[in-house]
Amino acid sequence: MKVRVYYEDTDVGGVVYHSNYINFCERARSEMFFQHGLSPHQENEFFVAKHLEANFIKPAVFADILDIDTKVIKLKNASAVLHQTITRDGEKLFEMNVTVAYLKNKRPAKIPDNMKEFLSRYL
Amino acid sequence: MKVRVYYEDTDVGGVVYHSNYINFCERARSEMFFQHGLSPHQENEFFVAKHLEANFIKPAVFADILDIDTKVIKLKNASAVLHQTITRDGEKLFEMNVTVAYLKNKRPAKIPDNMKEFLSRYL
Amino acid sequence: MKVRVYYEDTDVGGVVYHSNYINFCERARSEMFFQHGLSPHQENEFFVAKHLEANFIKPAVFADILDIDTKVIKLKNASAVLHQTITRDGEKLFEMNVTVAYLKNKRPAKIPDNMKEFLSRYL
Amino acid sequence: MKVRVYYEDTDVGGVVYHSNYINFCERARSEMFFQHGLSPHQENEFFVAKHLEANFIKPAVFADILDIDTKVIKLKNASAVLHQTITRDGEKLFEMNVTVAYLKNKRPAKIPDNMKEFLSRYL
Repeated sequence: MKVRVYYEDTDVGGVVYHSNYINFCERARSEMFFQHGLSPHQENEFFVAKHLEANFIKPAVFADILDIDTKVIKLKNASAVLHQTITRDGEKLFEMNVTVAYLKNKRPAKIPDNMKEFLSRYL
Repeated sequence: MKVRVYYEDTDVGGVVYHSNYINFCERARSEMFFQHGLSPHQENEFFVAKHLEANFIKPAVFADILDIDTKVIKLKNASAVLHQTITRDGEKLFEMNVTVAYLKNKRPAKIPDNMKEFLSRYL
Repeated sequence: MKVRVYYEDTDVGGVVYHSNYINFCERARSEMFFQHGLSPHQENEFFVAKHLEANFIKPAVFADILDIDTKVIKLKNASAVLHQTITRDGEKLFEMNVTVAYLKNKRPAKIPDNMKEFLSRYL
Repeated sequence: MKVRVYYEDTDVGGVVYHSNYINFCERARSEMFFQHGLSPHQENEFFVAKHLEANFIKPAVFADILDIDTKVIKLKNASAVLHQTITRDGEKLFEMNVTVAYLKNKRPAKIPDNMKEFLSRYL
């Protein structure tokens, strides 16, 4: 998935505001679902981030086109760990591991089979 | 209501990103409700912006403390027009008129009496 | 230009947060420049929004793919007025007129010829 | 430092969008400086986030008033590690460790003495 850096993503430091890399990764996770005809969000069921660990390696700037790559590194019944990287022309700018948990009516729940099958392809 | 300008509010131009003034005004509208023990949002009932007209007069910058002032200039059964200004040390940076409509189950609805009474104090 | 609605664009009302339509339009204006090999932002020269008037017609929701259309309706030496609409499957959700002014070292300046020429194609 | 949750901070899940907790923590770090008559950002010198590790424990919702607490847990010449927590009525919703580095003209630089002295009070 590709993301363009617009004004709204930058800050007075002239670079992308730190938490926006995390937003870009979230867009990529959602887009994975959309691309497979699925949605990460249904009425009272959806994924939430539970933990994340991120490295800010080099800054992205206005007008950059960034590549976001997502791999599933752990897939359990009710949660998954994903490794996501953001690169610009092949140079890594950002990476993070994020643990997402599946919630149904605000409680941890089993990831539905079709979603699990789809996620397993990114392992 | 006072708002501090943080990194997230600025952009690479070194000033507050244009639509964030509109967000600051929305915070002030919500805060008006909170300060009166009310909420602008209940289950399936809330206000939505229908129209706005804004003037960007002077830019605010990182670390600024801004004052947001809100007046009700029209109050109807299902909608209201508010005039909001953002000033810094008395100097006007931004102003807008925003029309908000009350929705109940996604349809236009009468503004509840207690809300209307409270809004009428800002006329 | 197409924009996907992600989590970050929505709010607790279940729809796109009002000022994000304005951000989507800003992305589209920047993208117009990028697509022509230009940038709306150079060191100390860039466009700023001076005035906008917006109508929120129907809400967009999570996962929507939106089309943003931009027309130049007035083109002067140091400013321009653009009309932008956001549609979903041909249905208009949002429209605005925005006046942008060109700044050089924080002062109003003549829009460079190559930019003016390019903008004139959207008249 | 206290932060109110407004519409813009929430998403369609009805809770605060995950990366906004990280923004709230950044506001608190900036505010620490402001409260001591300092600024985290000067011309070509400022702090940037290099690494963060975050736990999303419980969600915050619209209208919540959150407390953000910041402690310095490591203070080196050119960087610092801070531990930040977000609580609501004493209940912990979020915590993170963030490593910030000092940059001068885009290169790692020694944290100025007055800033170091001030940060050491949060150890």
